[in-house]
Amino acid sequence: MNKGKLFLIPTVIAENTETNVITEQVRNVIKSLDYFLVENIRTARRYISKLKLGVPIEELQFELLDKNTDTSTVEKLLSPVVRGRNVGIISESGCPGVADPGSIAVASAHQKGIQVIPITGPSSILMALMASGFNGQSFTFHGYLPIDKKDRIEKIRSMERDAQKLNQTQIFMDTPYRNQKLFQDVIKTCSNGTMLSVARGITGVNELILTKDISNWEKTKIDLNKIPTIFSIHA
Amino acid sequence: MNKGKLFLIPTVIAENTETNVITEQVRNVIKSLDYFLVENIRTARRYISKLKLGVPIEELQFELLDKNTDTSTVEKLLSPVVRGRNVGIISESGCPGVADPGSIAVASAHQKGIQVIPITGPSSILMALMASGFNGQSFTFHGYLPIDKKDRIEKIRSMERDAQKLNQTQIFMDTPYRNQKLFQDVIKTCSNGTMLSVARGITGVNELILTKDISNWEKTKIDLNKIPTIFSIHA
Repeated sequence: MNKGKLFLIPTVIAENTETNVITEQVRNVIKSLDYFLVENIRTARRYISKLKLGVPIEELQFELLDKNTDTSTVEKLLSPVVRGRNVGIISESGCPGVADPGSIAVASAHQKGIQVIPITGPSSILMALMASGFNGQSFTFHGYLPIDKKDRIEKIRSMERDAQKLNQTQIFMDTPYRNQKLFQDVIKTCSNGTMLSVARGITGVNELILTKDISNWEKTKIDLNKIPTIFSIHA
Repeated sequence: MNKGKLFLIPTVIAENTETNVITEQVRNVIKSLDYFLVENIRTARRYISKLKLGVPIEELQFELLDKNTDTSTVEKLLSPVVRGRNVGIISESGCPGVADPGSIAVASAHQKGIQVIPITGPSSILMALMASGFNGQSFTFHGYLPIDKKDRIEKIRSMERDAQKLNQTQIFMDTPYRNQKLFQDVIKTCSNGTMLSVARGITGVNELILTKDISNWEKTKIDLNKIPTIFSIHA
């Protein structure tokens, strides 16, 4: 018997942007499936419902795959796939498997010989890089910065050094309510000539992407509070 | 007078996949523009023509923006945008600004206060990462590996060390006709337990994404010759 396939299904990264960022392929793949592993069942249902695909949502099976899901649960969730059922993974924002728990299911799928198929969708990391004007031939994404003040400043310093030494774009983020603080920490910590790109609310109504050197940022007011933002620095 | 905007317009990463990977937004943005900076004029025209948007392609203005375009030419190409004309950037593959010359125009746009708007599209780097099952909270993209044998092996060793030491996914590539050689170099250089993900022909008819440890790859035959492939390693 053929094994099922695992589809990595993107969702929106800003509210009410389905028409802009979701491809016809995403719609077709969702229509073809009845089994989903999702980071949040309520929001995944709501997302599929908003796409107006005409599928009976109450007949679809949703199982939770979040940061608390352990490996043995993931194995169990994938056993129908080994027996031939296709499955889709949907995370809370953007493309599953990048900075979310989807990757443990993908790793397990590869071990079991299940084919993994990524579907095109919006990624705030990639779109911030595109729009930064920085080196896209070499870049590092660091995820969330440390919360501890000292560790955080040391991390910013080490990223600034790598940006210079390796000509490598350094991309990072924080939880939205700490964005303004992170922005201030970067301005205070980096040299005047270092370039900073701030990509706020990508694809959404608050989208604003600016790239300036630190001395110019010092004169600029920008409201990042509670709006998802990606930061990039370069020499 | 308001300045024009700069749109970063994705194209396909595999032939005849427009229906799958190109969003309605890309189509609408292209329809709204008559001025494009493109990495290759012939392929950009052909792409727009394939989208069947009903726009008179012979009336659109295409200007070359490739790896030989210098900064003063880019300034000239952006002067209509400063005066209010919108412009779209289209590269040879995927999302402009990542591993292509689009980023020099983006950097110049930021200096001139031109708004930069990235549009959602396919990225082989990001889709390879999604489908690898590796850590997406921390990753580095290294671009093309060195051609010189000794430098190449040393680069593979240093990526393997970083993957272990930093728990960081290491992503890299080569020109398609050197893929098979690169694959062999990775197999020979890395330890048996190191994980390698090979993402071949993403979104296309030859798509195949496999993640295995090196000792399992030694027993696996895979044809990568002349097919665009993204490699990722992780501890």
